[in-house]
Amino acid sequence: MVTQAAPAEERSRRHLLDVAGLDWRSLQKLLASAGEMQQLLDAPAGGSDALRGVGVTTLFYEPSTRTRISFEAAAAALGARVTTFSVATSSVGKGESLIDTVRTLEALRTQVIVLRHERAGAPWLAARHFGGSIVNAGDGWHAHPTQALLDLSVLSRHLGDSGGSLAGRRIAIVGDLLHSRVVRSNLHTLTTAGATVVLTGPASLTTGFTEHAASFRGAPGSVQLVASIDEALHNADAVMALRIQRERLTPGEIDSLEAYRAAWGLTSARLAALAPRALVLHPGPMNEGVEIDPDVADGPRSLVLEQVRAGIPMRMAVLQQVVSGARA
Amino acid sequence: MVTQAAPAEERSRRHLLDVAGLDWRSLQKLLASAGEMQQLLDAPAGGSDALRGVGVTTLFYEPSTRTRISFEAAAAALGARVTTFSVATSSVGKGESLIDTVRTLEALRTQVIVLRHERAGAPWLAARHFGGSIVNAGDGWHAHPTQALLDLSVLSRHLGDSGGSLAGRRIAIVGDLLHSRVVRSNLHTLTTAGATVVLTGPASLTTGFTEHAASFRGAPGSVQLVASIDEALHNADAVMALRIQRERLTPGEIDSLEAYRAAWGLTSARLAALAPRALVLHPGPMNEGVEIDPDVADGPRSLVLEQVRAGIPMRMAVLQQVVSGARA
Amino acid sequence: MVTQAAPAEERSRRHLLDVAGLDWRSLQKLLASAGEMQQLLDAPAGGSDALRGVGVTTLFYEPSTRTRISFEAAAAALGARVTTFSVATSSVGKGESLIDTVRTLEALRTQVIVLRHERAGAPWLAARHFGGSIVNAGDGWHAHPTQALLDLSVLSRHLGDSGGSLAGRRIAIVGDLLHSRVVRSNLHTLTTAGATVVLTGPASLTTGFTEHAASFRGAPGSVQLVASIDEALHNADAVMALRIQRERLTPGEIDSLEAYRAAWGLTSARLAALAPRALVLHPGPMNEGVEIDPDVADGPRSLVLEQVRAGIPMRMAVLQQVVSGARA
Repeated sequence: MVTQAAPAEERSRRHLLDVAGLDWRSLQKLLASAGEMQQLLDAPAGGSDALRGVGVTTLFYEPSTRTRISFEAAAAALGARVTTFSVATSSVGKGESLIDTVRTLEALRTQVIVLRHERAGAPWLAARHFGGSIVNAGDGWHAHPTQALLDLSVLSRHLGDSGGSLAGRRIAIVGDLLHSRVVRSNLHTLTTAGATVVLTGPASLTTGFTEHAASFRGAPGSVQLVASIDEALHNADAVMALRIQRERLTPGEIDSLEAYRAAWGLTSARLAALAPRALVLHPGPMNEGVEIDPDVADGPRSLVLEQVRAGIPMRMAVLQQVVSGARA
Repeated sequence: MVTQAAPAEERSRRHLLDVAGLDWRSLQKLLASAGEMQQLLDAPAGGSDALRGVGVTTLFYEPSTRTRISFEAAAAALGARVTTFSVATSSVGKGESLIDTVRTLEALRTQVIVLRHERAGAPWLAARHFGGSIVNAGDGWHAHPTQALLDLSVLSRHLGDSGGSLAGRRIAIVGDLLHSRVVRSNLHTLTTAGATVVLTGPASLTTGFTEHAASFRGAPGSVQLVASIDEALHNADAVMALRIQRERLTPGEIDSLEAYRAAWGLTSARLAALAPRALVLHPGPMNEGVEIDPDVADGPRSLVLEQVRAGIPMRMAVLQQVVSGARA
Repeated sequence: MVTQAAPAEERSRRHLLDVAGLDWRSLQKLLASAGEMQQLLDAPAGGSDALRGVGVTTLFYEPSTRTRISFEAAAAALGARVTTFSVATSSVGKGESLIDTVRTLEALRTQVIVLRHERAGAPWLAARHFGGSIVNAGDGWHAHPTQALLDLSVLSRHLGDSGGSLAGRRIAIVGDLLHSRVVRSNLHTLTTAGATVVLTGPASLTTGFTEHAASFRGAPGSVQLVASIDEALHNADAVMALRIQRERLTPGEIDSLEAYRAAWGLTSARLAALAPRALVLHPGPMNEGVEIDPDVADGPRSLVLEQVRAGIPMRMAVLQQVVSGARA
């Protein structure tokens, strides 16, 4: 993993490759900036001209219409010129293609590339060959920084103290830890914000993650991996269900979707018994009736749509920051 | 079928799901509005800012580049912010996905969704879960409201009296009635405008439609289903050929494209013999040489391209109406 | 091949179908216009409003994201309204569809169609049925006019005299002549600009091209087809590698990619030995390690990215010219 927290990079945040290098002060700045962006969106003009003339290209090697639209709406709200470059996975696969594409986009006057790639580390490769800014919109199982940032903004608003800190809060994350870039990024931001994160999921989907959690360099005890969903939900202030990504599972990793729901699904019965006041999150798109029940997803304590809404101002904040960083 | 003509809905037309609830006065208002939109398009500025800041998303679960471009051109001509959300049919299919997508688009600040879906009724499902406006751009075999409205605008211009009424006019519709959402929507608008509609087509593609036509609640005799194209074309003021949708046919529904042309195609010989002054329409895209011959499609009485052109101002009128309805 | 140089067409260049009809004065005008467009791009505003209100549609029957984005960036920099119309090859294939689509786009208020098609001659067919302007963005193996124009602009800048002429310059083109629209178009522009073009490649990929080169009506000796890459590179001022288009090759046309690289690839060893000061071009996308080695593509004499950059101002010049031609 590339560390991004060197002092020089702290001054000039040209890229957003990972949240791993962001300390609490950096996270607070992004939260504050996203708050200002929300005010821009709510004002009559509905945006600004801050990125007028800046070319932003969404380069997606995996399909993800929601994330793409969210970034494109954010870029458009700042007055940027937005281009979509969708790549069918079949026509690429070689590292040379990514480098070649990134250089071509630079020659085509793109200043920011929002990159989704199926291989972990692809954004770092791209950043080495691109004169502008790379924003990681998800790389393999590795990282999904803007998802973690928008999750943090939602949780800070509901559970944070006046400075946004989550100190003393307990956040449960349930499900397929193994294939989830969301949990890898959230682990960093949530513990940096002071929360305790309790992870759980079926053994077949948490093996290998044990070591990751153990080596996590947050405050002692800030990350716990437990074997039982009952233990994970107990006293949780918020619980996040992870998507069962059927396309990433290998045979045998889960017995059936029904068995998964019975053992690990967020059902209203389970929540009522174990964590009746916990807020509920899901990074979307949801498999309703598998990792989360429809009445929970639509229930009064669900923050699922608020997460989607929070994506636009947070991505505006990120785009603004990387463009400023590139100009610095 | 959902009726839309309740008084409250008459005042606030937030959606356009179907034409079935539109009375003649409502149709006249749309025709007049489309006329004003055409004047806007013809003026030097080429449009207006009426929908400045409004987010319009085209959400197409079936490919239809023409209809999509027509809606996007209409939305852009009113100054709206246009987003395209194309969905490969394979990755959806479940009702939950449509609801989830519609809610996500609302959270992403879309105010109008233009929805094309392969399942009849999908727009009503979407409307129940969306806080903005749904415009039905075709749902399965069921309805295609804006196609019927633009067809009406073209026919009113050529055959209508000073108020646009088609009273006393005879419109023939020929072909695959069974799979056609175009004919279902046109039946309502044309008879509401006072026309008599004569339907015909091969028995395999009209069975099941007999009952629909019989139960149609227009003026007595305003819809006739006849077995012979000669009878249908006799004295027709206009004739509309329906597209043979090969992808929707099951084996045996038609013998061959050649046989279809011989029996039901609009050829210049057949039109010269039976309806030499009839105007010719086709909803597009055409299978030239099957349901319509190239010289007829390009001939002096063809309105095919005029239909395409009429789509933009009529869709502008519809978008304007649903946004006004949502604000009311 | 359609000749485009009739006097009337010289005055009113409504289309850009081919470079074959462009004389040196016409090429110089485009080079000068592209230079002005580059100044517009470099100015703070980053573009102009010259095509405000003009509808430009990219209609691509073959995928080519780079060329499409380059045209769309060019159109946007002139203030045009840009629409993308991507067609999966499977859903077309019949001439009627192209004509029908082109007419539909005209009815949808498109004034310029940028057309990429897998069949040679398709742009001429489209131009006969379209009231606006057609810009050929590549038709089969036949022509790729804007690629040749941007290559000329790059070579004129580096190797041209004060008027941009390439008189006395020697340009080698290496590789798959048989399937290359790039070489067909470049042959005309480069020899018209005064250069000598030396062609070479494996016999299986140059057969049939011999006759074309022999019948070429430039100055005597301005086009040479040689059997050896050593002879082609000798004294070359610039060398252009052509892309091995694996999807167009039939079995047996080349033995293996490794064998191709050994015999015909632009390696640094080969260039150092034969043409140490030659500039290096490639139309992209590159198969690095096949027709060109990575260190050559990224080396100090490579113009590959400059070619990409040159595409936007040259395509702005072309769009401006055809719109002016249509208004004349």
